[in-house]
Amino acid sequence: MNPAAIEHAARVFRERFPHFIRRTPLWKLPGSALGVQASEVWLKLEHLQASGSFKARGMLNRLLSNPIPASGVIVASGGNAGIATAAAARELGVRCEVFVPTVCSPAKQARLRELGAQVVLAGAVYAEALDACLARQRETGALLTHAYDQPEVVTGAGTLACEIEEQGGRVPGSVLVSVGGGGLIAGVAAWYQDRSRVVGLEPELAPTLHRARQAGEPVDVAVSGIAADSLGARRVGALAWDITQRWVPQSLLLPDEAIRTAQLWLWQQLKLAAEPAAALPLAALQQGIYRPAAGEAVALVICGANLDPASLA
Amino acid sequence: MNPAAIEHAARVFRERFPHFIRRTPLWKLPGSALGVQASEVWLKLEHLQASGSFKARGMLNRLLSNPIPASGVIVASGGNAGIATAAAARELGVRCEVFVPTVCSPAKQARLRELGAQVVLAGAVYAEALDACLARQRETGALLTHAYDQPEVVTGAGTLACEIEEQGGRVPGSVLVSVGGGGLIAGVAAWYQDRSRVVGLEPELAPTLHRARQAGEPVDVAVSGIAADSLGARRVGALAWDITQRWVPQSLLLPDEAIRTAQLWLWQQLKLAAEPAAALPLAALQQGIYRPAAGEAVALVICGANLDPASLA
Repeated sequence: MNPAAIEHAARVFRERFPHFIRRTPLWKLPGSALGVQASEVWLKLEHLQASGSFKARGMLNRLLSNPIPASGVIVASGGNAGIATAAAARELGVRCEVFVPTVCSPAKQARLRELGAQVVLAGAVYAEALDACLARQRETGALLTHAYDQPEVVTGAGTLACEIEEQGGRVPGSVLVSVGGGGLIAGVAAWYQDRSRVVGLEPELAPTLHRARQAGEPVDVAVSGIAADSLGARRVGALAWDITQRWVPQSLLLPDEAIRTAQLWLWQQLKLAAEPAAALPLAALQQGIYRPAAGEAVALVICGANLDPASLA
Repeated sequence: MNPAAIEHAARVFRERFPHFIRRTPLWKLPGSALGVQASEVWLKLEHLQASGSFKARGMLNRLLSNPIPASGVIVASGGNAGIATAAAARELGVRCEVFVPTVCSPAKQARLRELGAQVVLAGAVYAEALDACLARQRETGALLTHAYDQPEVVTGAGTLACEIEEQGGRVPGSVLVSVGGGGLIAGVAAWYQDRSRVVGLEPELAPTLHRARQAGEPVDVAVSGIAADSLGARRVGALAWDITQRWVPQSLLLPDEAIRTAQLWLWQQLKLAAEPAAALPLAALQQGIYRPAAGEAVALVICGANLDPASLA
């Protein structure tokens, strides 16, 4: 999880997987186009990534960095991490089992099956699905992927930050990143270190990193609200904790209302269909919760688009 | 309507209206990422343009190129041309009247009012709204905008082609463009002339340019089908006719089913929420209706996003 490892992963993606991992657009707009004070806003349109979120980067890197047994890969997730693992497994032609709780919507189960995964319904809540997944993993020896707390997953996410720098032609003054378990912000901070101000954003109703910083260590947190399906990790990852303590100066909270307003603004004004978790960076700017300095170029990571489009109507 | 005029308009947009006319992203992907034969596909994400379609370029250029009387601007359109005129008028702080037939949906009327336009319901069908609009224009002397058949509108649309060339770093081998009244393809062809193969695409159910080419002159055509609200011009514009006769070697037709499949593919696989009219270029590639040469870079213009997002579910 350092710039050299990230650069290596980015090169592998570019050279061997250009048909799978997409170099998503970096859209530069003047702040005035978004009604905000920043001189330049760089929208990294990572919701257009394969699998519909940045997680494809981390999952492919995890799979490429380890021997994959005949039993394939295994994950517990009804969300973006499960979809990304299934997509990466299909890309490499290996088996994939995804454990989901019974509350996982039929639409999400169908999407996982469409990607060739074997979907296993286990338990009423995520924790039970995870237990079943871990038991199965011990049985089969399949390669386990974790949504955020594995070094290869963090390194893979970091390739996004490396692209922002290449596409932007320079280091942005700040990078605003939504935080769930912290895999994305860890990758971004591992890339920029002290060269840019990396800011973590969480819903008030899922303040995983924020509470950990208050407590001085990772703690369990109750999570709910509009973005909980993507950002609702109960505890920040150990890797993310270390990296953000070192390189992330600010962790800010946003009310659900501001997140929803920004999500609708992205659709109505920019025609970007993004999930609530992807709207926190814009919300922070529009609400003045993050205030850029004069002349600052602010990069916003639009991180996912796994949503029901009818929710934008 | 020549490269110098287009370059001038592009410069004015860039220097004076960067907060309004957006430099929309050009997304380069290998053909394999889209399951098509082309070596490179360049997606011009013009559905992210202000007003939700490329038409903002033409309308702003029309308004900038003429004195605007106190009575403001006037247009007959319940679709993208009306929205773009209203948006450009608001940008310049001038009055705007939009004549629409009574079939215009309440949602579209509300959008027009949100942009500050005065909406006038006139007649049951478009032709009646147009008659009422022209009568009103004679009364007030307001500046009339036409959806496609005015030189400033064509020149404004051409700025999109100029951007593709700048962003792509070279001239693409071909540019695939949807055709309604022909304003967009005329602008694109006026820019590239014989330097790129500009291909016109129409729904089988709205074959305005195709029938004109068969007849040897613009003729009235019955229009219907999935993309009729954007591409359903009954007769190709006189300007577009002249320019396409000179510079557009191919005009191809697509069945509605292929258009709908491509529209859903754009959403499900790329997370681009685009209207049916914007999906014809991808449909032509995916169906093999347009077959690029080996090594050809094909530019696809994704031209609009004025759709009900629930239609993607």
